[in-house]
Amino acid sequence: MRAVVFKSPYEVNVEQVEDPKIGSPRDALLRVTTSGICGSDLHMYEGRTGASPGIIFGHEIMGIIEEVGDGVVGLKPGDRVVLPFNVACGFCFNCVRGFTSACLTVNPHGVSGGYGYVDMGPYRGGQAEQVLVPFADFNCLKLPGSEEDELEDDFVLLSDIFPTGYHGAVLAGVFPGSTVAVFGAGPVGLMAAYSASLMGAGEIYVVDFIPERLEKARQIGAIPIDFSKGDPVGRIMELRMKSGLKPGEEKMPGVLCGVDAVGYQARDTKNPGKENPSQVLEDLARLVNPTGSIGIVGVYFTKDPRGVDDPARKGNFLLPWGRFFEKGIAIGMGQTPVKKYNAILRDLIVDGRAKPSFVISHRIPLSKVPEAYRKFDERTEGHTKVVIKPKMH
Amino acid sequence: MRAVVFKSPYEVNVEQVEDPKIGSPRDALLRVTTSGICGSDLHMYEGRTGASPGIIFGHEIMGIIEEVGDGVVGLKPGDRVVLPFNVACGFCFNCVRGFTSACLTVNPHGVSGGYGYVDMGPYRGGQAEQVLVPFADFNCLKLPGSEEDELEDDFVLLSDIFPTGYHGAVLAGVFPGSTVAVFGAGPVGLMAAYSASLMGAGEIYVVDFIPERLEKARQIGAIPIDFSKGDPVGRIMELRMKSGLKPGEEKMPGVLCGVDAVGYQARDTKNPGKENPSQVLEDLARLVNPTGSIGIVGVYFTKDPRGVDDPARKGNFLLPWGRFFEKGIAIGMGQTPVKKYNAILRDLIVDGRAKPSFVISHRIPLSKVPEAYRKFDERTEGHTKVVIKPKMH
Amino acid sequence: MRAVVFKSPYEVNVEQVEDPKIGSPRDALLRVTTSGICGSDLHMYEGRTGASPGIIFGHEIMGIIEEVGDGVVGLKPGDRVVLPFNVACGFCFNCVRGFTSACLTVNPHGVSGGYGYVDMGPYRGGQAEQVLVPFADFNCLKLPGSEEDELEDDFVLLSDIFPTGYHGAVLAGVFPGSTVAVFGAGPVGLMAAYSASLMGAGEIYVVDFIPERLEKARQIGAIPIDFSKGDPVGRIMELRMKSGLKPGEEKMPGVLCGVDAVGYQARDTKNPGKENPSQVLEDLARLVNPTGSIGIVGVYFTKDPRGVDDPARKGNFLLPWGRFFEKGIAIGMGQTPVKKYNAILRDLIVDGRAKPSFVISHRIPLSKVPEAYRKFDERTEGHTKVVIKPKMH
Amino acid sequence: MRAVVFKSPYEVNVEQVEDPKIGSPRDALLRVTTSGICGSDLHMYEGRTGASPGIIFGHEIMGIIEEVGDGVVGLKPGDRVVLPFNVACGFCFNCVRGFTSACLTVNPHGVSGGYGYVDMGPYRGGQAEQVLVPFADFNCLKLPGSEEDELEDDFVLLSDIFPTGYHGAVLAGVFPGSTVAVFGAGPVGLMAAYSASLMGAGEIYVVDFIPERLEKARQIGAIPIDFSKGDPVGRIMELRMKSGLKPGEEKMPGVLCGVDAVGYQARDTKNPGKENPSQVLEDLARLVNPTGSIGIVGVYFTKDPRGVDDPARKGNFLLPWGRFFEKGIAIGMGQTPVKKYNAILRDLIVDGRAKPSFVISHRIPLSKVPEAYRKFDERTEGHTKVVIKPKMH
Repeated sequence: MRAVVFKSPYEVNVEQVEDPKIGSPRDALLRVTTSGICGSDLHMYEGRTGASPGIIFGHEIMGIIEEVGDGVVGLKPGDRVVLPFNVACGFCFNCVRGFTSACLTVNPHGVSGGYGYVDMGPYRGGQAEQVLVPFADFNCLKLPGSEEDELEDDFVLLSDIFPTGYHGAVLAGVFPGSTVAVFGAGPVGLMAAYSASLMGAGEIYVVDFIPERLEKARQIGAIPIDFSKGDPVGRIMELRMKSGLKPGEEKMPGVLCGVDAVGYQARDTKNPGKENPSQVLEDLARLVNPTGSIGIVGVYFTKDPRGVDDPARKGNFLLPWGRFFEKGIAIGMGQTPVKKYNAILRDLIVDGRAKPSFVISHRIPLSKVPEAYRKFDERTEGHTKVVIKPKMH
Repeated sequence: MRAVVFKSPYEVNVEQVEDPKIGSPRDALLRVTTSGICGSDLHMYEGRTGASPGIIFGHEIMGIIEEVGDGVVGLKPGDRVVLPFNVACGFCFNCVRGFTSACLTVNPHGVSGGYGYVDMGPYRGGQAEQVLVPFADFNCLKLPGSEEDELEDDFVLLSDIFPTGYHGAVLAGVFPGSTVAVFGAGPVGLMAAYSASLMGAGEIYVVDFIPERLEKARQIGAIPIDFSKGDPVGRIMELRMKSGLKPGEEKMPGVLCGVDAVGYQARDTKNPGKENPSQVLEDLARLVNPTGSIGIVGVYFTKDPRGVDDPARKGNFLLPWGRFFEKGIAIGMGQTPVKKYNAILRDLIVDGRAKPSFVISHRIPLSKVPEAYRKFDERTEGHTKVVIKPKMH
Repeated sequence: MRAVVFKSPYEVNVEQVEDPKIGSPRDALLRVTTSGICGSDLHMYEGRTGASPGIIFGHEIMGIIEEVGDGVVGLKPGDRVVLPFNVACGFCFNCVRGFTSACLTVNPHGVSGGYGYVDMGPYRGGQAEQVLVPFADFNCLKLPGSEEDELEDDFVLLSDIFPTGYHGAVLAGVFPGSTVAVFGAGPVGLMAAYSASLMGAGEIYVVDFIPERLEKARQIGAIPIDFSKGDPVGRIMELRMKSGLKPGEEKMPGVLCGVDAVGYQARDTKNPGKENPSQVLEDLARLVNPTGSIGIVGVYFTKDPRGVDDPARKGNFLLPWGRFFEKGIAIGMGQTPVKKYNAILRDLIVDGRAKPSFVISHRIPLSKVPEAYRKFDERTEGHTKVVIKPKMH
Repeated sequence: MRAVVFKSPYEVNVEQVEDPKIGSPRDALLRVTTSGICGSDLHMYEGRTGASPGIIFGHEIMGIIEEVGDGVVGLKPGDRVVLPFNVACGFCFNCVRGFTSACLTVNPHGVSGGYGYVDMGPYRGGQAEQVLVPFADFNCLKLPGSEEDELEDDFVLLSDIFPTGYHGAVLAGVFPGSTVAVFGAGPVGLMAAYSASLMGAGEIYVVDFIPERLEKARQIGAIPIDFSKGDPVGRIMELRMKSGLKPGEEKMPGVLCGVDAVGYQARDTKNPGKENPSQVLEDLARLVNPTGSIGIVGVYFTKDPRGVDDPARKGNFLLPWGRFFEKGIAIGMGQTPVKKYNAILRDLIVDGRAKPSFVISHRIPLSKVPEAYRKFDERTEGHTKVVIKPKMH
C-alpha cells in the first residue's frame, strides 16, 4: 500500500510500504477513507521532537473495517469507524479510570500509545491506504451512515482535534455563562472555542495573528483578538470593561477559563517572528481571574533539539508561578483521552448540533501530501486543516 | 401598599396592606417592578397545601432597591436586583455548601424559607408594590441596565423558573450530546428543556397535552410529545429507533436524562381528566435507560388535603422501585437552591445567549391578578406564564 | 468438576458437571481457590426471583489462572486474580463510562451480566472447582502473593461485598466528618459501615436486630442500633442529641448519609417476624437530614413470586415521596460497578489499611455447601458470611 | 490591649495598642484565647514579602465572643469560635462558589482578605488580646465546649493549617488507597499527610530534613524521607519497588498524589543550606505518575525582595513544564478557602477521629512571642508549631 513516510526534517514522501496484516486475534484491519494532518505532525516534520526517519505519519484516522481477528466481538467487515489517536488497551489501571492517554499496556517505553508518532509505540500511522488497529473493540468508535455521506469530514475530526479542543475547554473549567479565552486559532484552538460554545460559555475570545483563522473564530461566534495589533490581555480586558462587566465582575475584568492551544512554539506577542515558549502562559497568568482554570492542550515536550535556549531544549520554561499561586489557578494539561469524549461528540454531530468540519480548509489525495505539509507548515494559502482522501487521485 | 392576598381556595384579592419597613440592619426594601405567578402558587390557590388565608402571595420578584439597613454593604438605593425565591442566611452549614434551599436560619419551623409561601416562614410575598428582603446582600442578585429595558422579563425568571428548570437538567445529569425527556411543558418544563439545550443536549423530548405548550417546546428545538395521543414512552422510543439510534444505543432506546417538571398533580396518560400522582415517575422508570438520571423539580408535598387517596394525602405514592433499582437510576429532587445558578444564568441573558422570556404569555397590572389566577389555573386563553407589573394600570 | 447446582427453592446440590473450556480467544480458565455465598444467592435459593433449576451458583470468585486464550495479553497461567461479580466487555458505551454493571455486550436479554445468577446471562457460577472468565483481561483483577497467604479471605471480598458496601457509602455521599446510618448489618451493611469509616466518616450508626451482627458493627467502631428494641430513627436522633449535636446541627438531628443494605426483604420494625418492603426507605426518609443522600445497595427486584402483596410481587412499593422531596434527598441505587472500586480497595488491603475479612464467619469445603445455605438462610449458628474452599475436604 | 507588632525584618514587639471596637452592625469583638504563629508569618518576619512595619501579626485565631453588632444574628457573647484566616463577605460571586480565599468585597486592593497579613486588607491580626471580626456570622465557626477543655489546641488549628493541609490533599486528588508524597514536614506538611490519612490514602511519604519533623510524620503512620541523605525521588521509588508495587503499577513506581507544602523558600536537595525555589516542583515532576495531581499549598509570591535571582524576586521560576505536560498532571494551588473545610474538620475533632494538636510543640504567653519567632525561624529547640495563650503569664 501507499503511505506517507518521514524522511528527514522538512521532508516527507509518499512511498509503497508493506501491507498491514492481522497479527493478534484482537486486531482489526482498516481501509482508510479519510485521515488528517495534525499540527502536532508539524513538530516532527520540523525536527522539533527527535523523531527518527521511517515513521509513517498520521494519527487522525477513519475508515471501513476490512477484516477482524477472532477475538474481536463488536466489529465486522464493512463497519464505519473512527479511531482515537491514542492506542489503548481498555483494561489497565489508567484506561479503566478513563485515562486512555496513559495506557500502561500498549507502549512499554513511553507514557502513551498512538499511531505514527515519535515515542508512542510501534503503531504505524494512518496517512496511508490501510492501518492496523490493536485492541480493535476498544479503539474503534462506530459511526452511522456511509463513507460517501456529508458527515465524513465531521467524523474524522473525532480522532483528535474535536475531542482535544473539547478537553481543553473541560480542563479550563468552562461552564454555562463563563468567560473564556482561547490562545491559538489553529484547528485545535478553533475546536476549543467551538466546544466552549457547545458547553454554553457566555463570552469567548480567540487570540491569534493569522487573519483567516481569526475570521473562522468570528464565524463561530467568538470574538477574535489579533495579538499582532497589541497586547491581547490588555485588549480583552478593555473590551470586557467597555462592553459591560456583569455585576460582581468589577474586580475581575479578565476571564475565568483560559485555554492554551498553542504550546511550546508560541510566538512573542511583541515580535511574532520570534519564538517565546512562555508567552501564552504569561498572558494567561495575567488574564485569568482568581479562582479560574487553565487547560493546556498545545504541546510542551521534554526534548526539543531546536529550542530557543538550553532549558527550552529540555522542556524547562520560566513561568509566572507567583502570579498563578496568588490567583489560585487550577491547571490541567496533557494529551487528550479521546475515548472519554468521542461518543458524545459523535452524537452531537449525528444530532446536527455540531458541525466541526468548518475548520477543514483542504481535501487532498495522498500524492499531494508532501506539498500540503510544506504549505501547512508555512500557514500559506489558508492551510488551516488538511485532510487526506486516499481514494482520491 | 397594594398586594395579592390569599382568601380561600380559588380566591385571591388585591388589597391594601401595611407598607413593609426595614427591621434589621441587614434588610433591604425593594420596589417591585415585575413579579411572577408561579405554577406552585396554584397548589396553594387550589387548596392543595394547607396554606392559611392571609398570605401575601408571590415568590418571583425583581425590582429596585429603595432603602437599605446599616449593615448592608453591597447594595444602595437605585440598584436593580432580582431575588431567589428562597430566603437564606448565607452563613449556616447548608448555605455554605450551596444548599440555600435548606437554610437553617431563616425558618425555624420548616426545611426552607421563601417569600409568600405556606410553611416557608414569615416572609411576605412579592405580588405587591413592595417587598422586604432579609439578609439583603446575600438574597439580592444585582442586574445591569434599567427597569425599562428589554431584559426585564428575562431577568424576572431568574427568581425561580429559569434556575428551577436548569436545576432539573443538572439533577438529570444532562451533558453535551445527551438524550433528554422532560415531562411537563409548563413554564418549568420549558425552562428545563431550554436549559438542557444550553448545556449541549443532543435530543430533547417534551411531554405534555396542551397544544400551545407543546408548540413552545417545538419552537426552542425540542421534540413535542402529546401524551393524549398515546403512551409517550412508547412514542419516544419509536421516534428514537426510527430516526436512528446511535451505534451502541441498540439496547437503550430510551433516554439517559429524565426531568419530572409535573409533580404530584400529574394526570393519567390514558385519561388526562384524571389525576394519577405516580404517572410521570412510572413513565420515567420505563423510559430512562440503565445508568441514567432523573431530576424532579415538579413538587411532591407531605400533605395534600385533596389527594386522590389516603396515602396520597400524606405524600405517599406507589412507585416502580424494582425497575429503578434494576436500571441503577440516580434520582435527585427538591427545591432549587437558586443562588447556585442565578448569576451564571444572568450572565447568559446579558451575553445574549439565553432569552427565557419566550415563555411569558401575559403581562398584567395588579388589578388583573385575581382573573389571571383563575385563567392560569384553568390553562385557558394560553395562560402559560403570567407576570405582574405593579406600575401598570 | 464439582459445582453447586440449584435444584428448587430451598435445595442446592453439589454435583459433577462438565469442565469449562476456553471458547473465545479472550477467555481465561480459572481454578477457584475461594468463592463466597452471597446474601443475594439466598434470594434465588428462597424462590424469590424466578430463577430456574440448573443454575450453578456463585458470583464471588477468586483463584489461579490455568489457561488463557490467544487474545489475552495481560494474564498468564499461575496469576492470582479475583473477579468482579459483573461480567463486562470493557468497551461498550456503558463500560467506558465506568458502568460495568450495565454492560451492553455480555447479556442481550438483561441489564447486566454476572456469574451464576438469574437473568444475568449464560455465565456459570464459581461455587465450583473451575470457572470460565469471558473478556478475561478486563474481568480479572490481579493480586500479589499466593493462595496460601493470609490475605486470601480479604481478597475474595473484592468480588462483591467490599465494593458493594463501598458503593453504598459513595452513593450515600459519605465524606470526612459526615454522619452515616447503615440499615442492615449483614455482610454488605458491615462493609458499607467499614467503607464509611475508611472514607473518614465521623459518626456511623448500624441498624439490625441480630446480636452477632450488631456486635461486629461495634467492633469496627460503629454504633449498633437494635431495631427490635424500638424505633431506630428515634433512637439515633436521641443518641445524637444527647451525645452532642455539633453547632449548626440543632435543626438536623438525623444523619446526612443513609445506606439501605437490606432491600426488599426488609422486616417490619414493630414486628420483626413480618416482612415490610418499605420499612427501610420509610425510616431513611425520616432519618436523613435535608440535603442528604441515600445509597441503596440492598436489592429490589421487578418480580418476586412470593412478595407480600400484589404490587410488591411486581416490584412496586408505597414510598414517602413527599418527605424525600421536601428534604431534597439524592438517591442512588443499583448493582455495583465493581471494576470502579476493586483496584483501590485491593491496594488498601495490600497496604494493611483495610482488613475486611473480619466479616467472614465460616470457611467450608464444597461438600458442606447445601448445609451452609440452609443455616445462612436461617441466620443460625452465627452464619454471617460463608466462603467455600474447593480444595478443602 | 497588648498585641504583637512587626517592627522590621527579624524584629517583632509586644506593644500596647488601641482596643478594637465594633464599627459595623455585622462586626463581632472576640477575646482571643489561643492564636498561632504560622510559617507564613515568617515570610513577613524575614522581610521576604514587602510587608510594612506596624502590622499586628496573627491570622490563626480562636476565642470567645465579647460583643456583637446589631446585624449579627447567629452569635452572642460567650460563644466559643474559631476564625478562618481568610476574611470574606459570604455573598460575592467568589464566596458563593466557595472561594472565600478570593472574596471580592473585603480587600479592594488584593486578591484576598486576611487578618494581620501583608496585602490582605486592613484587618488587624490576632496575636493580641482581642480582635475584631468583620462579617462575623460568616467568619466565625462555632465550637462546642469551653476554653478550658482539652480540644482548645485542636480547634485553633481549624483557622489555617488543618484546612490548609487538607486542601493540599484535596488538590492532590487523594482518594482511598492512593499513594501520596508530601514535601515539607512543617506544620502544614504534617497536616497534609494527616489529612491524606483521614481520607483513606494507602501509602504516605513525607519529605524533609529536620529529624523532629520526620519523627512526627512517622508517628502519624507516614513514611519519613530525609532528603539530606540523598535524592528523595529515587528513594521513594526504590522503597515502593522493594516493598511491593501493586499489580498494574510496574510502570508507575512514583505516586499519584503530590503535595508541595514548602513553597518558594525550598532548599536545594543536594545542598540544604542553599535555597532553590524550583526544587520541590522539579522533584514532583519526576515523582508524580502520569495522570496524577499536585496540590500546592506552600506559598509562592509575586514579589520577594530577597529572592535568589532576578526572576525569583518577581515570582518567576524555571519549571519542568515538558515533563508535567507529558505526564498529564493536574496542578491546583493557592490560598485555602478555609470555610469550605472547617466545619467538617471540626466535626472530626469533636467525634474523636482527628487530633491535629500533635503538631503543636510550644504554648507561650504573649510576652514570649518575640523569642518564639526567633527560634521558630531558626527551627531550633524543636519549634514546630507555637501557639500563644494571651491569658498566660
